[in-house]
Amino acid sequence: MKKKYLLAPGPTPLFPDAVLEMGKPIIHHRAPEFAAILAQVREDLKYLFQTKNDVLVLCSSGTGGMEGTVCNLFSPGDKALVVRGGKFGERWAELCQVYGLETINIDVEWGKAIEPRLIAEALKRSPDIKGVFVQASESSTGVRHDVQALGEIVRPYENTILIVDAISALGVFPILPDQWGLDVVVAGSQKALMLPPGLAMVNLSEKAWRFAETSTCPRYYFDLRKERKALAKNQSAYTPAVSLIIGLKEVLEEIKREGLEKVLAHHARLARATRTAMEALGLELYAKDSPSDAVTAVKVPPGIDGAAIPKMMREQFGITIAGGQDRAKGKIFRIAHLGYVDIFDITTGIAALEMVLKKLGYEVTFGKGVGAAIEVYYNSGGQG
Amino acid sequence: MKKKYLLAPGPTPLFPDAVLEMGKPIIHHRAPEFAAILAQVREDLKYLFQTKNDVLVLCSSGTGGMEGTVCNLFSPGDKALVVRGGKFGERWAELCQVYGLETINIDVEWGKAIEPRLIAEALKRSPDIKGVFVQASESSTGVRHDVQALGEIVRPYENTILIVDAISALGVFPILPDQWGLDVVVAGSQKALMLPPGLAMVNLSEKAWRFAETSTCPRYYFDLRKERKALAKNQSAYTPAVSLIIGLKEVLEEIKREGLEKVLAHHARLARATRTAMEALGLELYAKDSPSDAVTAVKVPPGIDGAAIPKMMREQFGITIAGGQDRAKGKIFRIAHLGYVDIFDITTGIAALEMVLKKLGYEVTFGKGVGAAIEVYYNSGGQG
Repeated sequence: MKKKYLLAPGPTPLFPDAVLEMGKPIIHHRAPEFAAILAQVREDLKYLFQTKNDVLVLCSSGTGGMEGTVCNLFSPGDKALVVRGGKFGERWAELCQVYGLETINIDVEWGKAIEPRLIAEALKRSPDIKGVFVQASESSTGVRHDVQALGEIVRPYENTILIVDAISALGVFPILPDQWGLDVVVAGSQKALMLPPGLAMVNLSEKAWRFAETSTCPRYYFDLRKERKALAKNQSAYTPAVSLIIGLKEVLEEIKREGLEKVLAHHARLARATRTAMEALGLELYAKDSPSDAVTAVKVPPGIDGAAIPKMMREQFGITIAGGQDRAKGKIFRIAHLGYVDIFDITTGIAALEMVLKKLGYEVTFGKGVGAAIEVYYNSGGQG
Repeated sequence: MKKKYLLAPGPTPLFPDAVLEMGKPIIHHRAPEFAAILAQVREDLKYLFQTKNDVLVLCSSGTGGMEGTVCNLFSPGDKALVVRGGKFGERWAELCQVYGLETINIDVEWGKAIEPRLIAEALKRSPDIKGVFVQASESSTGVRHDVQALGEIVRPYENTILIVDAISALGVFPILPDQWGLDVVVAGSQKALMLPPGLAMVNLSEKAWRFAETSTCPRYYFDLRKERKALAKNQSAYTPAVSLIIGLKEVLEEIKREGLEKVLAHHARLARATRTAMEALGLELYAKDSPSDAVTAVKVPPGIDGAAIPKMMREQFGITIAGGQDRAKGKIFRIAHLGYVDIFDITTGIAALEMVLKKLGYEVTFGKGVGAAIEVYYNSGGQG
């Protein structure tokens, strides 16, 4: 009878209406019925991405969308500037290297955001940089990078595009590709979109599409130009993830019904409640200066076994949070608050955390974290 | 109240137990619970593939698995021999070209199978051919290529591997990688495995893995060596298609329970019933000499509007069958009989087809096709 709770930064809890819809008998991807669904998804994705350009939908997890960006828009020898401040920044760097790009990494201390002036300076030094790669939300550190500021910096460079991994950002906080000059925005199904993993979404500006004309990297399954042509006819180049696209239709309808602004405000509120709760418990935020509203990374207090926290959360309370990855292993834990999550999922996570920390020898006044969370929530319009 | 029937060669009707399982709250892909599921799937895939080697599971449709094979095992300039006898044979050729392989195409008339001696001769002429690419079941033409014979031919060549697209073959008729010397076997979730599209499975022989050591093609998301390493720890390199893998567990359990031999016999029986029914209706099989048990391709009779057949099947009876693709457009229609399909799905399809053909002006004695189908079924052990 142990209930399960999922507070990890993806997959996130599924949207029930989507689950029901995905459980219906499957339809054929070349049937007119499916083309109609894809047509609606296409329109609604423009709303979600706040863009006039088509958003491509790939059957892969988010990394496939990232790879598609690199191998469709660049060529070996092209200069790439990568913001490397976490595991996913490293992924951009690895992808650029695999495709033979001349990669300049800007290493940012984990837990810190990139200072936009560093990008401005790098571009001034090397105006032949063709791509600037960054995460909007770096899930491994809980940092939000200021992609709006980066957009302003990159925009004047005619031969440079800004590529944003917004996999755990889109639908959480504002991401405005057209307005901010984000040339490529990659998203995934298993984050704020409340679906199982298996869909990557890629939005490209006209400037980015021009890069596709000269790229010489090999590509086939992730051929974005082929997908663009197919999507114009409400089709996909290869067999699409039919069920997930049907689920996506439900999710996008719900986001439209609710209004994107309200969805983002909801996430902001939950994130603030979580951060405040952590501080009320005397814990230190890992990404203090520029926290992402998708996930809150918290430093393990001195003397406490960091690996034990997620383990005990899971084993004693059925709650999945995330530990730290790579160099942050054992040093942080991460509570996600994106997707189909409400304040009571958050208070559940905090209540369990209070008990786990107490058991591990950390001094806790029970209810202090939970109290701080609901206080923030109540006072920020959450009480309805 | 119009019921829907899916008789297309993928996606195929979903296995209900898998649907229910996939509808449960999602779990995290790094949770021990998921590792346990993957461990079981790993074992059961070895049974399904009748192999001692691990079967990699990728989050993509089948084409991603095909691409992974090319870009992990070959290098630009490598010589490839491609059996090109349909749309999917063409896909192998396109993939080889994208990655700069020197591609020799053996063009086989659509509807015919490759004569194995042609491969033997080509290898004798060019023993430096590194890869022979073929479909076990070419869905676009309904042809079964004799991959067992090809395995015997390729096996003695130490520096040549045989790559088999078994996406619509695996689980339908015998595919024995280890025994037959099929070095790479690619499968997909949306065919005999009765799941939505979104999983590709790839089995590699030790001989094939040796090719991976020297390949220089760029790859990241489809890095098979990385997946192999991860799978050894019951993990995946990137976020996997969690729901589909949970569904796959159910499907594989069912196949084990039933017994692979019985599953294959069931498919053979349905295929034979379908073919016999078509001939009883005076129709000509497109792949007469070497038909695949996955899908039956039928020539549109002279004077009948070929495009109208699938259209009327869908619009009047809610039944999805497939038309012809590319050069076979309007010339054939295809009835699939793989996955979660029984004899009554087949009789449903045939009954509707009889009515559609009659309406299109073709002479039909109602019940003749259906009768022939159940006669075959009854006499081949189908009556239980």
